Amino acid sequence: MTSEAGIAASGGVVAARPAAGRVPAPALRDFTARAFLALGVPEDDARRVAGLMVEADLRGYDTHGVFRLRQYVDRLRDGGITPAATVTTVRETAATALIDGGNGLGHLAMQAATELAIAKAGAAGIGWVGVRNSNHAGPAALYVLPQTRQGMAGICAAVGSANHVAPFGGSEMLLGTNPLAIAVPAGRQAPFLLDMATTNVAMGKIKSLAQRGEPMPEGWMVGRDGRPLTDPNRRDEGFLLPIGGAKGYGLAMAIGLLAGVMNGAAFGSNVVDFTTDRTSPTNTGQFVAALSVAAFREPTAFGAAVDTVFDEMRACAPLPGHAPVRIPGEGREERAAKGDAEGLALHPNLVKELDAIAGELGIVGL
Amino acid sequence: MTSEAGIAASGGVVAARPAAGRVPAPALRDFTARAFLALGVPEDDARRVAGLMVEADLRGYDTHGVFRLRQYVDRLRDGGITPAATVTTVRETAATALIDGGNGLGHLAMQAATELAIAKAGAAGIGWVGVRNSNHAGPAALYVLPQTRQGMAGICAAVGSANHVAPFGGSEMLLGTNPLAIAVPAGRQAPFLLDMATTNVAMGKIKSLAQRGEPMPEGWMVGRDGRPLTDPNRRDEGFLLPIGGAKGYGLAMAIGLLAGVMNGAAFGSNVVDFTTDRTSPTNTGQFVAALSVAAFREPTAFGAAVDTVFDEMRACAPLPGHAPVRIPGEGREERAAKGDAEGLALHPNLVKELDAIAGELGIVGL
Repeated sequence: MTSEAGIAASGGVVAARPAAGRVPAPALRDFTARAFLALGVPEDDARRVAGLMVEADLRGYDTHGVFRLRQYVDRLRDGGITPAATVTTVRETAATALIDGGNGLGHLAMQAATELAIAKAGAAGIGWVGVRNSNHAGPAALYVLPQTRQGMAGICAAVGSANHVAPFGGSEMLLGTNPLAIAVPAGRQAPFLLDMATTNVAMGKIKSLAQRGEPMPEGWMVGRDGRPLTDPNRRDEGFLLPIGGAKGYGLAMAIGLLAGVMNGAAFGSNVVDFTTDRTSPTNTGQFVAALSVAAFREPTAFGAAVDTVFDEMRACAPLPGHAPVRIPGEGREERAAKGDAEGLALHPNLVKELDAIAGELGIVGL
Repeated sequence: MTSEAGIAASGGVVAARPAAGRVPAPALRDFTARAFLALGVPEDDARRVAGLMVEADLRGYDTHGVFRLRQYVDRLRDGGITPAATVTTVRETAATALIDGGNGLGHLAMQAATELAIAKAGAAGIGWVGVRNSNHAGPAALYVLPQTRQGMAGICAAVGSANHVAPFGGSEMLLGTNPLAIAVPAGRQAPFLLDMATTNVAMGKIKSLAQRGEPMPEGWMVGRDGRPLTDPNRRDEGFLLPIGGAKGYGLAMAIGLLAGVMNGAAFGSNVVDFTTDRTSPTNTGQFVAALSVAAFREPTAFGAAVDTVFDEMRACAPLPGHAPVRIPGEGREERAAKGDAEGLALHPNLVKELDAIAGELGIVGL
């Protein structure tokens, strides 16, 4: 990022003047909210989901932000997602809760879950909120970062919205990429932020390679014959490989049990592929946890100790030919500040898709 | 296992008659407790640690059970571990606690943490207990299985007791294998039980290969020159590789922050290598969580749903040349029952080591 962008974003003295070809974040938020409004989503909900989707783009989760609007629009229109949904807390203890998303946009249930987890952690040291009857909610990172702003660690996981993975040694797709996000606040520095699929790559990356006409390296996918699959256009003939073989399978399954079955949500053969099915409720399961630093140690000392760990890792001599060591999540805050100041560079295909959506819904375009 | 062994173990009608060359579990427990007693560990503590160590062997965690007695004995004798340690709860909220292990045997702090997490989950839905001033405590699996017997899921992680891993792209060993265990109860079936290092293999496996004179496959270790390392005898010239590259690094770091820094325990350059250092306290950090199924849904329905998921995974057609799909943890209950009935088959080198310990401590041997 340029230092000007940093000043503009943090100080707010320089008015945001988007660079040529860039879309200002507020314009993208307004457009996204208009699309939801046109589909019957109540205004407050529309604005909240649009805000989270643009936040995903700002932080660099390109495949999990406004890029997903097409899927949400199709499912809202065809009955797969309920536009005017009610999010309800159906079970509650001192430190846990179960939220029912009412089959609305997943962001709504997940934002409510994050807020409730933080409130419970404030009172009981930890809060763990399960979610059922939810939907795709963008990157899990969105639901662990708010914790760090309250002096808490955040943990979030979800049953993936389509099964692209076979159990270890098996040949049927019964598992999703089941992502896991963990954030931990630091002292002076940006928080630690891990947001990972339990597979070596997510399906979105393979679709991008197909668009660009490039092959996949071995280890990303395997065919039903057990052989490596490297043609991204043949991705329907195989499945994604979990990280560390049996270990990634175990992790994906643990997440499926804790985020899915524990909450009465789908996991296994009852997962609805939301990329192809526009009409069936998915009963997506997720969980969000918040863990208060103050319950364990004095927060200032904690922040300083985290900073020291980050500094040590960064000071580590790189392997020959490698860039300096990075802390997971590093650079995302600066990226968001730059996007806020300069606008977001959307891929031309995405701009075309948003134009098409505007035409279909009869709303003002970007 | 044979069906006779099953009857003997579960019904208790047939007296345990160890097969030739096998050591009865009670004899191994008594011997291990005698060793601790001779080193000044109070009797009740000695018996509890011995019980957990033999349980590890019974469940097949051979490298984390009685195999570790030599290290514990050396560190107890030379001052690295405090024999008569007091485990204290130093902070507490409705759903969390911080336990100080008093630099005693790690099993004592971790067993206390597990019991406290379960008690808190019973009242508040979840319990999360951090541990500091602890030591190596055997396999993390030991501290997630008790939760499943109370209708709870268990989560446990630890900062590894030696740094064998470099941050992704780096060349200095600042991370341990930082293991993670997750257990989830089922209905009719044995619980889901994942206990994994965040590296492709643990160091113990590489030491075994060195003993047997066999090479490592590529992907287990990398040298400081960034090239694959395949000679297990040159393991000191490189470091273990995390699962999924940057993802495993992120996971190991998240565990270091949550199990180490959060509890005021060691993580990074201040980790003491307990395999070479016999005199310094390690300030090992761990955490144990318990999550009550009843806080989220009706437990019987939950158990049935978990059974269905297990059945689906097992029914999945295997990849060509692969064995049937397994559920993580599968077979360990039967293995433990067989060991209880028939005794434990200890490696001749381990028997020799235990004989040497008996001689050194002047106690009755196995």
